[in-house]
Amino acid sequence: MQDPAARRIEALVQHCRARCERGLEQLFEDAAGPAQRLEQAMRYGVLGGGKRLRPVLVYAAGRALGADDEALDAPAVAVELIHAYSLVHDDLPSMDDDDLRRGQPTCHRAFDEATALLAGDALQSLAFEVLTAGDPPRAGAMVATLAHAAGRAGMAGGQALDLAAVGRRADVEQLMAMHRHKTGALIRAAVRLGGLTAAADDDPRLAALDRYAAAIGLAFQIQDDILDVTGDAAVTGKTQGADAARDKPTYPALLGLDEANRQAQALVDEACSSLAGLDAQPLIDLARYMVERNH
Amino acid sequence: MQDPAARRIEALVQHCRARCERGLEQLFEDAAGPAQRLEQAMRYGVLGGGKRLRPVLVYAAGRALGADDEALDAPAVAVELIHAYSLVHDDLPSMDDDDLRRGQPTCHRAFDEATALLAGDALQSLAFEVLTAGDPPRAGAMVATLAHAAGRAGMAGGQALDLAAVGRRADVEQLMAMHRHKTGALIRAAVRLGGLTAAADDDPRLAALDRYAAAIGLAFQIQDDILDVTGDAAVTGKTQGADAARDKPTYPALLGLDEANRQAQALVDEACSSLAGLDAQPLIDLARYMVERNH
Repeated sequence: MQDPAARRIEALVQHCRARCERGLEQLFEDAAGPAQRLEQAMRYGVLGGGKRLRPVLVYAAGRALGADDEALDAPAVAVELIHAYSLVHDDLPSMDDDDLRRGQPTCHRAFDEATALLAGDALQSLAFEVLTAGDPPRAGAMVATLAHAAGRAGMAGGQALDLAAVGRRADVEQLMAMHRHKTGALIRAAVRLGGLTAAADDDPRLAALDRYAAAIGLAFQIQDDILDVTGDAAVTGKTQGADAARDKPTYPALLGLDEANRQAQALVDEACSSLAGLDAQPLIDLARYMVERNH
Repeated sequence: MQDPAARRIEALVQHCRARCERGLEQLFEDAAGPAQRLEQAMRYGVLGGGKRLRPVLVYAAGRALGADDEALDAPAVAVELIHAYSLVHDDLPSMDDDDLRRGQPTCHRAFDEATALLAGDALQSLAFEVLTAGDPPRAGAMVATLAHAAGRAGMAGGQALDLAAVGRRADVEQLMAMHRHKTGALIRAAVRLGGLTAAADDDPRLAALDRYAAAIGLAFQIQDDILDVTGDAAVTGKTQGADAARDKPTYPALLGLDEANRQAQALVDEACSSLAGLDAQPLIDLARYMVERNH
């Protein structure tokens, strides 16, 4: 990554990740709850690395509308807490039954199943606590956005569709519907939370941001599926071909690798053109970064 | 129940239950999410009966400070959604591994483990969505209250303490600490949410309500333990002696039945005296009702 856009985006991502990491760590500096083991499992579930893509989107979208980084810390941390809780629960034996996450034992492997269940539950609660600490402007709209994206009409609904799809033949439309909920909803929420930090919820710029977010959300998922086929396990931290082995439908399996790549690129172009009129070069850089990443 | 107080409280409880039930049912009239099975499991987890004690407390506390029932519907439903999610997860095989709840198959028995896990997760999200729908006054403070009570410093923290206590000798102090978190935090949140519907969060009447709630929360739990020993399974819907059989510490086991009864009564007296100066007869009636109930 030597060209100017690549250097810019790398600097932005590092900056946002560092802020988010600090914010997450602060949540565990003093044990807030009475149960040490639960605190440890929550910390383990959220501080074990991760791309922090959703927080980066919160910062980039918020900045595009004029928000300060300080005001964006809480929504960035909150959306990552929701993401982290979903991974902890997704890895549980009754769901994906995964032993490794980012090359480390999953939370229920490092602790135990009951503790991992509670840790995920408490990470979800903590997201809403963080989002409303200090009673920021538009706290109600922010909570409504994040709760809707996390729940039955968003991420949890998508995970239920995903469960129902294992072992069944799905077409591209069904796969897109699943991903629109399972991963797309939270990515859109991240962008919207950034926007809401600076703008009222009927501001037309939020609608432009949302079109951007819907397109990159899908592009991100297609890229994830592509990496499952082509990625190096040492870089992705996942077993190569794991989705295919589980008989989960993927974009490359349904479309072929070339067409999947083409569609991801077309979605990035669509995302960028949604931002016409906004001064949002970092968001444009980020969209490219998301489909050019190798992990 | 023939005396005037008993008739008053019965009427109040019926009225509040009916409002809460209607509010909960409305959430499932149109499938909001894409996954039918998840919607059904959520509905099953929340509409299978239940005392609706926490919603009754929301209405009674809110009315004591002058709130309208219409404004209290959302917090009443939200707190019950949190309670319902906690029961669904608490019954899972990795936690209490219960087959029956209120005489019916538990959610993971009626559906499957993964669906019950997601249903609990989505019920938690839904609570925060309901609480912020229409962006009511003090939405931020309400969400902060509920999220804190549900999370690591409240209910989830108490459940983790409970896990750690199974098979260990606990003293009364440890048992109280566990219950203060596991059930007490959400009961206090219910009362506070009712109060916040009518009053700013530094209103001194909220502090009086909170002393009331802390006392009845503990009284409620002692009564629950007493019913586990003395209750009729056909009325409680639980297996008699189930806690003792699991080697869970209980108040009657630690204090003896007479002393446990005496302490529950003393807490009710303390709760009622906290309300001095407030026009809150229904809250006083409710405190008595909570320790005189037989299920």
